[in-house]
Amino acid sequence: MRYKITMEYDGTNLVGWQKQKDGPSAQEFLEKAIAGFSHQQTEVFAAGRTYAGVHALAQVAHFDLETDLNEYKMQESLNALLRELQAPVCVYKTEIVSTDFHARFSARGRGYIYRILNRRGNSPLRTNRVWYVTYPLNIIAMQAGARHLIGHHDFSSFRGAGCQALSPVKTLDKFDITRADDEIIFTVEARSFIYHQVRNMVGTLMEVGCGKRKPEDVKIILEACDRQKAGISAPACGLYLNKVVY
Amino acid sequence: MRYKITMEYDGTNLVGWQKQKDGPSAQEFLEKAIAGFSHQQTEVFAAGRTYAGVHALAQVAHFDLETDLNEYKMQESLNALLRELQAPVCVYKTEIVSTDFHARFSARGRGYIYRILNRRGNSPLRTNRVWYVTYPLNIIAMQAGARHLIGHHDFSSFRGAGCQALSPVKTLDKFDITRADDEIIFTVEARSFIYHQVRNMVGTLMEVGCGKRKPEDVKIILEACDRQKAGISAPACGLYLNKVVY
Repeated sequence: MRYKITMEYDGTNLVGWQKQKDGPSAQEFLEKAIAGFSHQQTEVFAAGRTYAGVHALAQVAHFDLETDLNEYKMQESLNALLRELQAPVCVYKTEIVSTDFHARFSARGRGYIYRILNRRGNSPLRTNRVWYVTYPLNIIAMQAGARHLIGHHDFSSFRGAGCQALSPVKTLDKFDITRADDEIIFTVEARSFIYHQVRNMVGTLMEVGCGKRKPEDVKIILEACDRQKAGISAPACGLYLNKVVY
Repeated sequence: MRYKITMEYDGTNLVGWQKQKDGPSAQEFLEKAIAGFSHQQTEVFAAGRTYAGVHALAQVAHFDLETDLNEYKMQESLNALLRELQAPVCVYKTEIVSTDFHARFSARGRGYIYRILNRRGNSPLRTNRVWYVTYPLNIIAMQAGARHLIGHHDFSSFRGAGCQALSPVKTLDKFDITRADDEIIFTVEARSFIYHQVRNMVGTLMEVGCGKRKPEDVKIILEACDRQKAGISAPACGLYLNKVVY
C-alpha cells in the first residue's frame, strides 16, 4: 500500500527534511515512527527538501508499507509514535494512493511563504517563527523589486553555495508581498527552486525595502548571475513550505 | 514622567500579569527590568489582568519614573533588560503620557481573541498557541449560539470560581467567530470581563459546535445564572489579550 501524507513541522531543532548523521530530521522521525508500529523499514519520500531551521505547514510525502491500515488508522498510528518520539512533526492528512504517485516527481509546483516581523520590539510569541527586522520596510519598493524576479530566469545570483540542482534556470510563477498587521508576508510559487533561492531573494528584497538598494537593482543583480551581487540570505526561521501542487 | 507601554508576551510559563509568590509574572519582569536600568522601584499598572497561561498581543501598562529618557531610549532600555532576564515579554510601543492617564482606569474597552485549531492532527508550530479540537466544529451553530451572549447580561453562568469582580453584569459588545484556514477565531470585545468569562463562553460554544448542545441552549444557560449549567472552560493557551481601547 502506498500512503500519501501531509504534515506540519517545526524546523527549529531539525537538520531539515533529509536524514543526516549530525542531527534529527523530519524524515528520520517519520521512518522511526513507521518502524515503531509496523516493524517494517521503509523510506519516506518528500515533495520538497527543506533545510535546517525551515518549517513546513504542508510538506507532502509518500511511503510504501505492507499493511491493511486505512487512512484514519495509519494517521493515528503515525501521530501516536511521533508524540512518543517527541518529534516536532505531525501528520494531518493521509490518503491511500496508487503506486504511480510519487511525492517528489509527481509534484508540479511548490509554494513557500516567508514571514518578516517588521516593528521595533520583538515578538515572544513568534520566536523562531519570523525574521525580526526593525528598519521600517517600504513594501511598494519591495513589490517593485520582486516583479523583476517573476518569470523564467537564470537565478545564479540567488543560488546558495552547495546547490545540487542541475540548472540555475527556474520559472518563478508568483512573488506576492503583503502586509498583515506587524508582519510582511512573501508568497512564492514555482515548479521547483534552487538551494537557498527564497531566502536569498527575500534577503535582497529586504535591502530594497530599507532603502539600501533600489527596486531596479534587482534586475541588475539577476542579470549578473553572480551570488556576490545579491544581498544577504534571510534566516531560515521565517521560511515555511506551504503548498505542494500535483 | 509617566510612560505608557504596549507589549506582547507569551503567557505559557507565566503565572499571569500580576505579581505572585508562586512564579514569574509579566509585571514582575517589567518592574525588575525598570529597576535594572534606573535603580528605581516603581509599580507597573496594566489594562487587563491576564491569568496563568494567557497570552498578550497588545497589553497596555503605565508606570512613573524620575528620568528624562525619551520614548525610544526607554523602550530600548526596557527591552535590553527584559532580554537579559530572559523574560517572555517585549515592549513594542512606548509613549510619554500625562499623569491623567491610567492604563486600567482610563481603558474604555478590552478585546480578546481565542484560537481553536480544528483538524485531525496537531500543530507543532502552534504548541501552546491554540486549543487543539479534533471534532469537526459547525461554525454556523457557534455563531448562532454566540449571538445570545451579545449585549447587557448577568454572566454568572460563565463566571469562574474565585472571581473578584463586584458584579457579574457586563455588556458584551462583539462576539465574532470566523474560520481562517484550519483555525476558528473568536473575537470578543467589552468594557470589561469577569474572571474566566471568555474561556467559559468559548468552551460552551465549542460544545455547540460539535453538536453536544444546541445554539438555543446558550440562551437558557445564560438565563440560568448558574456556572454548573454552562460547558467546560477552554484552556488558557488559546486566549490572547488583543486590544485595549482608550
